[in-house]
Amino acid sequence: MKHARVACFGAIHDAIEVEGQVKLRDGRRVDPDSVVWLPPVMFGTIFALGLNYADHASEISFQAPEEPLVFLKGPNTLVGHRGQTRRPAGVEMMHYECELAVVIGKTAKHIRKAEAYDYIKGYTVANDYAIRDYLENYYRPNLAVKNRDTLTPIGPYLVDKEDVPDPMNLSMRTFVNGELTQDGSTKDMVFDIPYLIEYLSSFMTLQENDVILTGTPKGTVNVKEGDKVVTEIEGVGSLENSIVGDRVFHS
Amino acid sequence: MKHARVACFGAIHDAIEVEGQVKLRDGRRVDPDSVVWLPPVMFGTIFALGLNYADHASEISFQAPEEPLVFLKGPNTLVGHRGQTRRPAGVEMMHYECELAVVIGKTAKHIRKAEAYDYIKGYTVANDYAIRDYLENYYRPNLAVKNRDTLTPIGPYLVDKEDVPDPMNLSMRTFVNGELTQDGSTKDMVFDIPYLIEYLSSFMTLQENDVILTGTPKGTVNVKEGDKVVTEIEGVGSLENSIVGDRVFHS
Repeated sequence: MKHARVACFGAIHDAIEVEGQVKLRDGRRVDPDSVVWLPPVMFGTIFALGLNYADHASEISFQAPEEPLVFLKGPNTLVGHRGQTRRPAGVEMMHYECELAVVIGKTAKHIRKAEAYDYIKGYTVANDYAIRDYLENYYRPNLAVKNRDTLTPIGPYLVDKEDVPDPMNLSMRTFVNGELTQDGSTKDMVFDIPYLIEYLSSFMTLQENDVILTGTPKGTVNVKEGDKVVTEIEGVGSLENSIVGDRVFHS
Repeated sequence: MKHARVACFGAIHDAIEVEGQVKLRDGRRVDPDSVVWLPPVMFGTIFALGLNYADHASEISFQAPEEPLVFLKGPNTLVGHRGQTRRPAGVEMMHYECELAVVIGKTAKHIRKAEAYDYIKGYTVANDYAIRDYLENYYRPNLAVKNRDTLTPIGPYLVDKEDVPDPMNLSMRTFVNGELTQDGSTKDMVFDIPYLIEYLSSFMTLQENDVILTGTPKGTVNVKEGDKVVTEIEGVGSLENSIVGDRVFHS
């Protein structure tokens, strides 16, 4: 099943997908074009991987790390499907990053790889934008690179784990204004999903609704104001986002 | 006024300090020794500064940074006053870090230094422990250094901003088993509180109950299982913590 959170009719609703429409928990069906899509889960801690695809690490002139390179993102960065992401004036390089997002289903500590999938609730698509101008080196991107408001579109749906039988073999694609610019597969992760859950839970307790953004393959390119960016993962979803400039913000 | 969150009588209570006792919102007064102290605020995003005192940066062989070096911490790291913090078996260096914690009072974006204090709710004391064995370099400590469970004792009280007239001139002390081991002042911050709020809000939106751990002066030393660590800041509070080993965890 596919789960969403949407705003319509003056309220926020939990919803599921039925026949291409959005069905609210109260039974009403609504047109997907008529709602505001929110992040599909009230996420807890947001973990994100750096350089977890060797071809992408090479692309930005780094070697793949020897252990998972993980950093945290704040809730200020989240927007839902069809949301707007802000490109700051004057930056040179703003890259999308299509990533499989793994949502934790229950409290997890000292979990072995073989049991890791038992602790997963489901999957969604994230776009983990980076403002690369501010990248000092590969040791954990700083907040100006990764933690600005709106830099993490996510959704549209949380897809139940049972509906994604082989998460380590999903095609991943990004389209900018309809043109294919990134084409990879989750099979090329350096550290796979079970390993990441074993690693993180070896020194931290993961909680329900924590989420792990598992990294991006090569093919990141600069995006500019006005671009429409679609990141999609086979069997999980197609996440639309648009880039806006500073001018629409009057602060 | 000083605000706490405590567990007693089968529930979690908001409370204030009255004459050295804890007064629950329902009027009951309780002995501070009889309650479980929780982090005094339901914190949002937890920001922490690295190397924000030049003497401490020098102490661990780094230069002070040219702009604020900020990283995020997850809620799994938090424990309240008189909580236990876990020292993992086999690590060489576990350092306490006495830090003034600045709690945001309302939504803040593009805030100027001159207005920064308007956006502060109050202050508390944090102990931002570091497992230094895992520090790769000074660019943002990794999660194994800073984000393990229980590494951020905080409290006991949130002290209203109005009751801390000069937060940039407070003595800071740490005692390990009663012995003074760290003795500094908030006046020695490299980037002061107004600057940090201007900086962070220049590219992110800060929300009520977000918290900024503003860094530690020199005097960090290794602590071991069984140690009692008291971090205190003049006019803000005295935060007690004890170090436990892996053996008490049966996972």
